[in-house]
Amino acid sequence: MITKNQVKYIQSLSHKKFRDEESLFVAEGPKIIAEFLAMPHMQAVEIYGTPEWWANEPAGRTAEWAKEISESELERISFLKSPNQVLGIFRKPDLSVVPGGWQLILDGISDPGNLGTLIRIADWFGVQQVICSADCADAFNPKVVQSTMASIGRVEIVYTNLVDYVRAHAHRNFYAAVLDGIPLKDVRQHGPSALVIGNESHGIRPELMKELNHPVTIPRHGSAESLNAAVAAGIILSHLVE
Amino acid sequence: MITKNQVKYIQSLSHKKFRDEESLFVAEGPKIIAEFLAMPHMQAVEIYGTPEWWANEPAGRTAEWAKEISESELERISFLKSPNQVLGIFRKPDLSVVPGGWQLILDGISDPGNLGTLIRIADWFGVQQVICSADCADAFNPKVVQSTMASIGRVEIVYTNLVDYVRAHAHRNFYAAVLDGIPLKDVRQHGPSALVIGNESHGIRPELMKELNHPVTIPRHGSAESLNAAVAAGIILSHLVE
Repeated sequence: MITKNQVKYIQSLSHKKFRDEESLFVAEGPKIIAEFLAMPHMQAVEIYGTPEWWANEPAGRTAEWAKEISESELERISFLKSPNQVLGIFRKPDLSVVPGGWQLILDGISDPGNLGTLIRIADWFGVQQVICSADCADAFNPKVVQSTMASIGRVEIVYTNLVDYVRAHAHRNFYAAVLDGIPLKDVRQHGPSALVIGNESHGIRPELMKELNHPVTIPRHGSAESLNAAVAAGIILSHLVE
Repeated sequence: MITKNQVKYIQSLSHKKFRDEESLFVAEGPKIIAEFLAMPHMQAVEIYGTPEWWANEPAGRTAEWAKEISESELERISFLKSPNQVLGIFRKPDLSVVPGGWQLILDGISDPGNLGTLIRIADWFGVQQVICSADCADAFNPKVVQSTMASIGRVEIVYTNLVDYVRAHAHRNFYAAVLDGIPLKDVRQHGPSALVIGNESHGIRPELMKELNHPVTIPRHGSAESLNAAVAAGIILSHLVE
């Protein structure tokens, strides 16, 4: 059973303002929920599962966050086109990453799917921190959470002014993904550094670009004008992270 | 002005069956339309532009395919959430690629956005042919066309039975993106070859995998379970295409 107030509360979590105030977010589907429940630092606040989900998840039956709801109730609360067995409300993770490893810096990534894919790429390459400009999509937007495939539980996301951030860390190496930089294979490795990826249409803002010391380009052999931001990040990290 | 019949005709092009029968497809937005119009082998059948589009595209004014429509008419025919100045109907390109270069082989890529991004990646790396299993999304689906960013006009797309295809080309080298293959940096280069990418959830089908001689893995440094199919393709091509 789910009450009208619970439905309203869950729907309100589609708004960034409310997610920030409550420090909560929503995730959906058995796979991502199972991954979150297995992470010691992730705190479930409510889990709403259909009988199909509960049949495979007997461990949680007595937990205080456990609720069984019907398929049609799930349809009322889900943010997905095709609701998928379970919806969970989680506390935003508190991942205080020790500085020193690789970072991914995102300047104006506005598409939630791209942001989610970028966070998943960071997690694949062991990049524990993603630093976002204030105008990036919100990492706890339900669409972003879904496309991170649970990586949002393992990667720290920080929103800040990137120009100030880079100036404050001027001793670090900042690689910038651009169309007219040093070919990727000629780039010198400097140990853990930061990779900066710009907006899908406009690239890295000029005022930020001025601060970056290593422009990098993925050699083009054909005719496409550009690569998708997430694909570019994956390619560059695959060449530089050791 | 646009007639009811024209609206119906354009809407019917959202269906694969009709696109196949007519050998036509739809593209939208000034950027992709301008790129298509500049390709000598691309044939425009109709272009419906708003006054805003025509203001910047005076060259086409007298062309037989030229139509001016209002914003609200564009809204009626557009497949986009935010219609963008112009919609064009084009003949599917006839790109008869000379065999010998790199190929990208896609086994069950079902998401239109992923397929479009993969075609764009192929175009970036000079891969002129994408070979798709019959259950891949249709490359001329409007969503795929938009996410190729005009690369669909430069890359030949072939649908076929992949097991038969690979068996018929057994002298070639087929790299397969898998989670338990040879680490990418240890992979031997064999000159132009084919890269096989599997379905987003299930990977490459076992009956196809049996036929592939070079399993390749992108080393993982963190914890994400997998990489997005398009990101994996981009990373592997960036290491192997020379």
